[in-house]
Amino acid sequence: MHKRNNKIEVPRGFMFAAGAAGLRTHGEGPDVGFIRSEAPAKVAALFTSNLVKAAPVMLSQEHLRKSKYIAQAIVVNAGNANCATGEQGMQTAAECASKAAELLGIPAEQVLLASTGVIGVPMQAQSITTMLPKLMARLKPGGYAAVSKAILTTDTRPKLAAATISLSGRQVRILGMCKGAGMINPCLATMLAFIFTDAAVDGQFLREITPRIGDLSFNRISVDGDTSTNDTVFVMANGLAANKPISGKSAEAEKLVQALTEVARELAIKIVMDGEGARKLIEIRVEKAASEAEASAIARSIGSSALVKTAVAGADPNWGRILSAAGNAGVELRPELTDIYLDGVLVCRKGGAAEFNESALQRKLRGREVVIRILLRAGTAQSTFWTCDLTEEYIRINASYRT
Amino acid sequence: MHKRNNKIEVPRGFMFAAGAAGLRTHGEGPDVGFIRSEAPAKVAALFTSNLVKAAPVMLSQEHLRKSKYIAQAIVVNAGNANCATGEQGMQTAAECASKAAELLGIPAEQVLLASTGVIGVPMQAQSITTMLPKLMARLKPGGYAAVSKAILTTDTRPKLAAATISLSGRQVRILGMCKGAGMINPCLATMLAFIFTDAAVDGQFLREITPRIGDLSFNRISVDGDTSTNDTVFVMANGLAANKPISGKSAEAEKLVQALTEVARELAIKIVMDGEGARKLIEIRVEKAASEAEASAIARSIGSSALVKTAVAGADPNWGRILSAAGNAGVELRPELTDIYLDGVLVCRKGGAAEFNESALQRKLRGREVVIRILLRAGTAQSTFWTCDLTEEYIRINASYRT
Repeated sequence: MHKRNNKIEVPRGFMFAAGAAGLRTHGEGPDVGFIRSEAPAKVAALFTSNLVKAAPVMLSQEHLRKSKYIAQAIVVNAGNANCATGEQGMQTAAECASKAAELLGIPAEQVLLASTGVIGVPMQAQSITTMLPKLMARLKPGGYAAVSKAILTTDTRPKLAAATISLSGRQVRILGMCKGAGMINPCLATMLAFIFTDAAVDGQFLREITPRIGDLSFNRISVDGDTSTNDTVFVMANGLAANKPISGKSAEAEKLVQALTEVARELAIKIVMDGEGARKLIEIRVEKAASEAEASAIARSIGSSALVKTAVAGADPNWGRILSAAGNAGVELRPELTDIYLDGVLVCRKGGAAEFNESALQRKLRGREVVIRILLRAGTAQSTFWTCDLTEEYIRINASYRT
Repeated sequence: MHKRNNKIEVPRGFMFAAGAAGLRTHGEGPDVGFIRSEAPAKVAALFTSNLVKAAPVMLSQEHLRKSKYIAQAIVVNAGNANCATGEQGMQTAAECASKAAELLGIPAEQVLLASTGVIGVPMQAQSITTMLPKLMARLKPGGYAAVSKAILTTDTRPKLAAATISLSGRQVRILGMCKGAGMINPCLATMLAFIFTDAAVDGQFLREITPRIGDLSFNRISVDGDTSTNDTVFVMANGLAANKPISGKSAEAEKLVQALTEVARELAIKIVMDGEGARKLIEIRVEKAASEAEASAIARSIGSSALVKTAVAGADPNWGRILSAAGNAGVELRPELTDIYLDGVLVCRKGGAAEFNESALQRKLRGREVVIRILLRAGTAQSTFWTCDLTEEYIRINASYRT
C-alpha cells in the first residue's frame, strides 16, 4: 500500500543541529533542534485548532504576522510542551527566539518555535538558550537526521520524506520531517511537521496551497481522535534552487504542489504507522460518494471508530462495525447500495453479508497493512484516510505516561 | 457519587417472561424477552441516530406511527441485532410481531421490537416465534428480573432502576431496565432501555418530555464514542395507577418528569459503570459555563477523550489532557480563566499547574469513582456527563468478539 524509499537530498541552504538539554522526563538523549535557512524563506504554517494553544504556537503565530511570513530559523524541543504555562511560558518562548535571532543576526520574528512534551510543567528558557551557541557551531545540511530524532516523544522511529523535482530546468529539492505517534496526544504525542524546500515560490501562493496540502495529508490521519495543543506544520521555501518563481496556476505550480503533497502524505502515513501501540496501518478508501466532503466524513468516521480499530487489531473481518461507523458520519448513506471490501475481499454486498472465506480473510488481516474499501454508489467522489489499529499497548502507553 | 438502592415495585399491569432461543454465539442462557402491558400503554421512543438502522428499529418506528403511539407488548432479543439483514430481516421482525399480536389478541402495530447482538447475520423468525407461546404462559410481574438478564450481551450484570411517587393521591410506580456496555458497540453492545410506568399520562405530553429525559440521561454517557444501529429507548405508561392524567405543565407533571429522569439517569450510569473493560465510573461536571449547550459540549469532549480515560485508568492526575480535551470541544474556552478539580483537589488554576500533593491524589484516583470538575468562569450554566475509564480489557473484548 505504501512503500517509498527516497534518497534524501537536502534542499540548498538549510542546516540542522541537535543537542541534549535534559528536558525529557523519560529517557535521555537529544531533545532540542536548531534549524536554519541561509536565505530568508517564505513560510506557510498550520496550527492546532485546539482553543488551548501552547506558548510556542502563539508566539510563532505572532512572529509570522510581524515578519509577513518570512523566517530563517526554527527552534524546536521535545520533553516539555510549554503549554498551560501562562505568562512565564510566553516569556520562555520569547527568550529562546531572541537568543536564536541574536546568534544568527536576524530579527526575532524570523525565528519560529515548536515544542512537544508534557503539558503544564514550567519550562526554563535557559536550558535551551545555553544550548543554542553550541548548536549554532554544529549547523550543517546533514544534521537533519539528528533533528528528526531529537523531536521524537513516544515515537519509535524518526519520520522523514523527500522528493526532488525539476522546475524551469532547475532541480528543486523537498525534505520533510515530523514527529507524532498520536495525532492527538495533548501531553506528549503532538504532531510537528516541518517541510523544507529550496524552491522559489511566491509567499502568498505558498500560504494558499498549504491548507490544501494539509487537508490531503495530516488532516487525513487519526490515531486516537484528540487534537494536541501544540500541533504545528511549517513549510519553508528559501528559493535557493533558483527556479523561475512559482506564483499561481501553471503546470509547474501543479508539479510543486503535487510533490509537497506527496511528501506531506508520506510523513502523515509514517505517523499512523508509528501510532501509539499500533501494529497495523489501516487505509480507508471511500469511493463513489456524492461529494469529496461526504466521502471524507465517512472515511474519518470509520477511521476514528474504536470498534473498527480494535476489530482490525484482532484480524476480525467485522464489516458490521464498518457499516455502522459509516452510518454515524452525519452524512447521507444508503446501506442498501453500499458494498464493503476488506483487503480486496467483498464482505458486505448492498448492506448485507456477502459470501466469503472467513479464515482465509482472517489470515490476510493479520498482515501489517489493511485496506478497507467502501463503495457508496451515490456519485463519483472519493477520499482516503489513514489510521492504525487500536491495541492494548495504546492503553499501556497512555495510562502511565506522565507520572 | 452515585449509590441508590430502590426496592422495586412493578408498575401495575406489566408482565414479563424470558427464555432461551439459542441466538447467542457466545455462551448460553435466556436471550428472548416478552413484555406485556395488560392495558394499552402510551409510548414514547428514542431511536439510534445512526443512518444504518436495524430491522426492529425500522419496524418499531412504523408500528408507532400506525398505532398512534400505543403499544401493549415488547419482544426483545439478544445474540443477533437483526441489522444489515435486508428484506429478510424486516420479514423476521414482522413475523415476530405478528406472532406476539396473535397470542395477545391485539393489532400487530401494538407490538414493539428490539434486538441486540451481532450485525449482518440472518435471523430466523422461527427461533423466536416458537418461543413466544411458552413465554406467554409464563408472563408475570416478577418476570422483569429474568428479562433484564436475557437482554444482556457483554454486560456483566443486569441494570434496573425504579421509583415510586404519589400523583393526585395515587401511588405511581416506575420501573426501568437496560442493557449496554458500550453506548456504541454496533455489533454487540447496543443500548436498549425500557421504562415502564402505570402513571396515567397524555401520550402527546409523554412524547414531548421523553427527548429531554433522554438528553439528561442516555445522551450524557459514552463508553467508546460509537452509536449502535439498534439503540432504542421505550417509555410505556399504561395508566393503571389511576392518577389524574398528567398532560402539561404542573407541579405533578414536573414530579413525574423528575422521577422518570432519575430512573433513566440511574440506568445510564449503570451502563457506564458496566462499560466494556471499565473499572471506574468518571463523572464530569462542567460549571460556570456560558450556556448549557456549551457546558454539555465540553463535558462530552472530556468524556470522549481516549487520553483522559486512559489517564484515569492509570490513576494519573493528568489535568493537561482534560484542559486539552476541553479546548477541543468546538466552543469558546478561555484557559486563563479555567480551573480543574480532580476528586475535589484543585489541580489546574487559571489554566496553569496548581500546587497539590500528587501521591495523595493518585491514591484517591485509584478508587472506583472519579469526579472531574471544571470551572469555566464564563457564566452560570452547567452540565454533567458520565463515562468510564479505558482499559486494556476494552481492547481484549473488542479485538476478539465476533469471531
